[in-house]
Amino acid sequence: MNQTHDHIVKSFDSELARLNAEIARMGQLAAEQLRAAMHALQHRDEPAADQVIARDHEIDQLERIVAHDALKLLVLRQPMARDLREVYAALRVSADIERIGDYAANVAKRSKVISAAEPMRITAGMLPLAQMALDSLEAAMRAYRERNDQQAMHIRARDAEIDALYTTLFRGLLTYMAEDTRKITACTQLMFLGKDIERIGDHSTNICESVWFLVNGEMLSGGREKADHTAESRADE
Amino acid sequence: MNQTHDHIVKSFDSELARLNAEIARMGQLAAEQLRAAMHALQHRDEPAADQVIARDHEIDQLERIVAHDALKLLVLRQPMARDLREVYAALRVSADIERIGDYAANVAKRSKVISAAEPMRITAGMLPLAQMALDSLEAAMRAYRERNDQQAMHIRARDAEIDALYTTLFRGLLTYMAEDTRKITACTQLMFLGKDIERIGDHSTNICESVWFLVNGEMLSGGREKADHTAESRADE
Repeated sequence: MNQTHDHIVKSFDSELARLNAEIARMGQLAAEQLRAAMHALQHRDEPAADQVIARDHEIDQLERIVAHDALKLLVLRQPMARDLREVYAALRVSADIERIGDYAANVAKRSKVISAAEPMRITAGMLPLAQMALDSLEAAMRAYRERNDQQAMHIRARDAEIDALYTTLFRGLLTYMAEDTRKITACTQLMFLGKDIERIGDHSTNICESVWFLVNGEMLSGGREKADHTAESRADE
Repeated sequence: MNQTHDHIVKSFDSELARLNAEIARMGQLAAEQLRAAMHALQHRDEPAADQVIARDHEIDQLERIVAHDALKLLVLRQPMARDLREVYAALRVSADIERIGDYAANVAKRSKVISAAEPMRITAGMLPLAQMALDSLEAAMRAYRERNDQQAMHIRARDAEIDALYTTLFRGLLTYMAEDTRKITACTQLMFLGKDIERIGDHSTNICESVWFLVNGEMLSGGREKADHTAESRADE
């Protein structure tokens, strides 16, 4: 290995490390945002909700930095094979975290409407759902950091549990609305809030699929359908 | 210009042309899918809805091909400045079209539940909304094909009209549900279906922003908030 090649390799590695640090920071921010949105929902804390909404742009900005750095890395270092997959995965994972940030902000937005409504048992049902999504996000980020494809597949498989709980909550909300029409507005907001959380689970699953691709060089296709089953739910069931 | 450089330039241009053709095909497919989903909703045509759901993977596959070709182009041709932005925009635009395809499939899925319910005037209200989203998608794809940044800004500004109509429809659905609890299930599905359509408008807006970046080399940030206002809607308004 000559000196020039050595220099290029070292540069690639240090630039990739920077990219990874940026993505880790994005993941931490997204988890913080979701946690803060859950707090806002649980304690009807509107200022906390407003803060989540205001901070979303930080994640958006980080994603642009990652995209910029990733493209520069591709053009200047011309990575091949696994190195190329590293950069591709960085682009995909950062895009998924950015979407998760959007959904956390949506949860905060919707929590403000819920807090205006009377306290309801069903609101509490959203918290375990959000906790599952948060666990899934943090586990997916750990699998990505450790390039652990087996762990990633394990987390991906567990997304079905989030979907199942969401479907149960959705059906409960339909029943509540039918029983008491004064609850229609709040229940509708909770349905969308639940959907936002369920989507966070989907994007964590996407992160897991990027880890698999990074490690194994093959795309997982069509295996797990990332869809809830509320389209088949009826109030009269 | 020497022969080698000439050869590289020619290769870049022909590979970029291929990338553009793939994205144009993606855009056509997404528009076809949305049109077919609208038909399924309007005519309660379940087999048509099933076909939309089954064809979604074609758009997904095309996006992977675009991502693969774009990264290969970056690594092999090392484009700079406008050429680099071309490849970056290709990645962004194809990701947005892929999401639009997902939402069109969601519309088809939800239309199957609506078709099981009694006919409702409010279902018809979704069709103008979907037509606006379809127009926006096709106009955004035209602006991208023609690299027309002014046209892109014009289309982007019109997304507010989609948001406004969605909010109106959402409020109407809240009222319907309160008036007749037997309509709760169908109205809920229509709310989500409307939200899917509204999101198609958002992603068309993203395509417009990619066109602006491609032409001008600067990101549009924070200008237009891509959010509906249904979180502030109440049945008792």
